[in-house]
Amino acid sequence: MKKPKIVILGAGYGGIMTIVNLQKKLGASDAEIVLVNKNDYHYETTWLHEVSAGTIHQDRSRVPVKNLINTNKVTFIKDTVVDIKLDEKRVLLENSELTYDYLVVALGYEAETFGIKGLKEYAFTITSINAARQIREHIDYVFATYNNEVEKRDELLTIIVGGAGFTGIEFVGELANRVPQLCKEFDIPREKVRVICVEAAPTALPGFDPELVEYAVTQLERKGIEFKIGTAIKECTEEGIIVSKDDQVEEIKSATVVWAAGVRGSHVIEKAGFENMRGRVKVSNSLLAPGHEDVFVIGDCSLMINPETERPYPPTAQIAMQQGGTCAENISRLMKGQKELSEFKPDIKGTVCSLGHDDAIGVVYGRKLFGSSASFMKKVVDNRSLFLQGGAGLVLKKGKFNFF
Amino acid sequence: MKKPKIVILGAGYGGIMTIVNLQKKLGASDAEIVLVNKNDYHYETTWLHEVSAGTIHQDRSRVPVKNLINTNKVTFIKDTVVDIKLDEKRVLLENSELTYDYLVVALGYEAETFGIKGLKEYAFTITSINAARQIREHIDYVFATYNNEVEKRDELLTIIVGGAGFTGIEFVGELANRVPQLCKEFDIPREKVRVICVEAAPTALPGFDPELVEYAVTQLERKGIEFKIGTAIKECTEEGIIVSKDDQVEEIKSATVVWAAGVRGSHVIEKAGFENMRGRVKVSNSLLAPGHEDVFVIGDCSLMINPETERPYPPTAQIAMQQGGTCAENISRLMKGQKELSEFKPDIKGTVCSLGHDDAIGVVYGRKLFGSSASFMKKVVDNRSLFLQGGAGLVLKKGKFNFF
Repeated sequence: MKKPKIVILGAGYGGIMTIVNLQKKLGASDAEIVLVNKNDYHYETTWLHEVSAGTIHQDRSRVPVKNLINTNKVTFIKDTVVDIKLDEKRVLLENSELTYDYLVVALGYEAETFGIKGLKEYAFTITSINAARQIREHIDYVFATYNNEVEKRDELLTIIVGGAGFTGIEFVGELANRVPQLCKEFDIPREKVRVICVEAAPTALPGFDPELVEYAVTQLERKGIEFKIGTAIKECTEEGIIVSKDDQVEEIKSATVVWAAGVRGSHVIEKAGFENMRGRVKVSNSLLAPGHEDVFVIGDCSLMINPETERPYPPTAQIAMQQGGTCAENISRLMKGQKELSEFKPDIKGTVCSLGHDDAIGVVYGRKLFGSSASFMKKVVDNRSLFLQGGAGLVLKKGKFNFF
Repeated sequence: MKKPKIVILGAGYGGIMTIVNLQKKLGASDAEIVLVNKNDYHYETTWLHEVSAGTIHQDRSRVPVKNLINTNKVTFIKDTVVDIKLDEKRVLLENSELTYDYLVVALGYEAETFGIKGLKEYAFTITSINAARQIREHIDYVFATYNNEVEKRDELLTIIVGGAGFTGIEFVGELANRVPQLCKEFDIPREKVRVICVEAAPTALPGFDPELVEYAVTQLERKGIEFKIGTAIKECTEEGIIVSKDDQVEEIKSATVVWAAGVRGSHVIEKAGFENMRGRVKVSNSLLAPGHEDVFVIGDCSLMINPETERPYPPTAQIAMQQGGTCAENISRLMKGQKELSEFKPDIKGTVCSLGHDDAIGVVYGRKLFGSSASFMKKVVDNRSLFLQGGAGLVLKKGKFNFF
């Protein structure tokens, strides 16, 4: 009898947690499990703002895939997914192709620029290890350039962050700590450096508790971050950005624009012909793609509505990881011929937004936290995520213990 | 009685050694000594190829000026020299001006591009801490960019070094060691990286012993450096360089072109109206500028003919430092009203050219050296230079002890 073939696309939070759970449920003879990922490493997406700012090294935030999987049970293919032929149960990769009996699409997110002119061409996005590392090196380079010019261009020292949502705030939090180091490294007076966070919504961190938002903004302003709230980016150019607020248009010159205000699912979702919204598939409670009995979509490529708020759950690592568990359970049930599948219900323990390594705000089990207690919880969250993926060994190797 | 005012322009090897020697000869009441320098630090120019390649940090190769001078005897002004009004015995600085009784011009070198099209616009030069640091960060940035592009551009990983003279060879020697680190840091296959050293002369290191040159080239080629000897750079563009050899024209695409093949004296020499050749003043044996009794020119802005070869002495740190001694002696003699001045005669102990931190070639006291003995001598030379400038303390702080 031929073993069923389970193909998992993506080694992010969702994909890895599916594997980790499948490995526990299935023996080597039960199924053929194949994991496909673009890189030979998994990375902590929620740490990329730190890599981008240069406050942690990329190697801290990534793990070789082979360290996370049981290679006796799982075949790993380093390749890029090009398309999925759903009718033929086939996945096209850049260098080969694969058939599947069960498919898990966990291809993560991409930047969404909402059609704002020039963002794709001129703005950086915090979307991968490669992208994060490039942001870090770009900032280093423009700072290194500053003192070489006869006519000093202050825009080399202006960093614009588009978006004061979760990622934008966490990124400027790291920059606030990084800027003094950069000034020392490149002999630049601190007062020449500007970090400007631009947000179209009427508040930073929309959806967060207003008291915590006020704390975050005040703390970051104290560290030298400028906020332009209720201000929309109209265009990004080679020279900087054009913003508008109350019909007042302003140009801000900057050599570094980082767009941190929008994410969407993978373009492969669209290409494969799934019904989708911005690359996200509205999945069933059992995480199946509509109209399919063997294709699961999880993580940032999936869309589920929170019945309490009637709005989609946010694309978070927490949910992606939990979905990996449900997905593995359902594949195992399907393999046993069970009709009844497990229903996914997120167990949201809380949200913590860091403001640099030494400060944070958050709500954990319904309790508001800020300052060092929130910062402590942020590290607990980060370490827990490592523990779920790779056990205590991974926590010891890459965990965050700079509690104080 | 008014104290005579000695103004020294430049805190490089020549300027600092003039100060160090003047401080010994003169008491605080004998003269007013003013040192002007663009930066508040002195740097080891002969180590800049290491900073540029990223094999040592800039802070290793620089020292605050105040640590090298006796501030009871010397006034330091951080400013940029704009012009010298020789008739009025006045020096114009960016932010102020100075009069002098004795002037020492030790403004160092600038890059000479010999009118080759595009070099000024598109090539980097190893001419200062700022410039060196920018080269390092530029290379980091283009390497970080490589993996972000859908269509990989191999020219991002091609580094062209113009010139296989002393600086060019020392720089590619460092790059040979640095490239494997860069590949690891940015997930790049080593075989994708090219370092190409282009030299118009029929040999690398013209003037060096041919046996040593062969050793150097062979060793560097073994480490992956490519040489294009007898090949002239015709033009540098935004895309790379255009070279010609035996009337064959070739374009080499590269994101990083470093011009290391020509130096000249300071543009201030020309502006001030000194008789000069490429910013270098042909000084008398007592180091005075022609037609002046109170203006000394030393270091890379000076030109002296070696009577044995009838060619100019090369612009080296060794000679600049020795000139500082003679210059200080002659100022002190002039102050005492002595007519007879000391004549400068370089005492050339040897020349060592590094090929990375672990290899070198050289001639020391007429003896040919290569490999680890030469590499050892190179570090002795570097440490001796520190000792002369700042004593044993400076050697301990910044010296090179990675002998093996």
